[in-house]
Amino acid sequence: MEKPAPADHPIQDLLARRWSPRSFADEAVPGKILLSLFEAARWAPSSFNEQPWFFLIAVKEDREAFERMLSCLVPGNQAWAKGAPVLMLTAARLAFERDAKPNRHAFHDVGLAAMSLVIEATARGLFAHQMAGIEAEKIRASYGLPDDVDPATAIALGYPADAIPEDMTERELAPRSRKALEDFIFTEGWGKPASLLR
Amino acid sequence: MEKPAPADHPIQDLLARRWSPRSFADEAVPGKILLSLFEAARWAPSSFNEQPWFFLIAVKEDREAFERMLSCLVPGNQAWAKGAPVLMLTAARLAFERDAKPNRHAFHDVGLAAMSLVIEATARGLFAHQMAGIEAEKIRASYGLPDDVDPATAIALGYPADAIPEDMTERELAPRSRKALEDFIFTEGWGKPASLLR
Repeated sequence: MEKPAPADHPIQDLLARRWSPRSFADEAVPGKILLSLFEAARWAPSSFNEQPWFFLIAVKEDREAFERMLSCLVPGNQAWAKGAPVLMLTAARLAFERDAKPNRHAFHDVGLAAMSLVIEATARGLFAHQMAGIEAEKIRASYGLPDDVDPATAIALGYPADAIPEDMTERELAPRSRKALEDFIFTEGWGKPASLLR
Repeated sequence: MEKPAPADHPIQDLLARRWSPRSFADEAVPGKILLSLFEAARWAPSSFNEQPWFFLIAVKEDREAFERMLSCLVPGNQAWAKGAPVLMLTAARLAFERDAKPNRHAFHDVGLAAMSLVIEATARGLFAHQMAGIEAEKIRASYGLPDDVDPATAIALGYPADAIPEDMTERELAPRSRKALEDFIFTEGWGKPASLLR
């Protein structure tokens, strides 16, 4: 199943096709492809080229690693993410490596890397569902995260399902919606839409 | 000038070409194209579909708006960003709109939207340079940001320069570098590279 964004202005097919499903095909993702996804993340830009992003990955063939990672999601996400062939956790180093000062852009830059990974995935026929619903303290303890690293998100990833499981139909078929550009593109001041929108 | 990433594993041309220059051609970006960039950002995913991202934009033709935004960058960035035809500021709403609770993914999700915008820009022959070096309190005061919204980054955007100004040669021609995948892709625990890297 695909669910392209109903964009008001033309955007790249790759960006319109990107969507966060809850159902995936029962098909493994080749390691070579996963390497390309991480390579895409690797070349994201970051404040002072700090690259504050980290990824933990578990594939379903490695049952133990997969179950361990799955158990780090909130139960509502476990319910559907268990069907994905690949799980990832992202994390952010909150302090600069060179001087230990706080990096207020750490989470932002993890977002830049995550989106790069997701775009590369979309180009390869994969879909990714990023999740905020994780058990951060469990991740920290289970994987031994350093004090200055915070868990950020989980990502479920795989090829699209041919058929949607019955209990997911409503959520999977719900229309995609976003705010209007007027609500978040300003020029003169807060709440004043940019003139190019008129 | 272009400066594609020397990727170790194949990635999309669009991601490899993305680069953050400091020199731009003296050529305006059509409003229609800017709309597509914002539309790309609009369709980024976010925690609870909160869409915590905001963009302020100033184009060089609007001298007053441009100078005002330029003055919100740190001096080191002003020095080169003044040559870009388009400037943007990004901001993040730190609390969920529906219940005012903290959104710990706000900056992360602004990163997702920013990367979408930058990818759309790259597809259209544009280059974007994202900056952490901004005067956050000046932005807050100048544009009247609400208390629960924090400035995140600035973005300078435009077509690539034909020739690099002499005082920028060193920085613009410096090789691009990143950590190795082994440094940030783990499976068993922190610092233990994922087996797919072996």
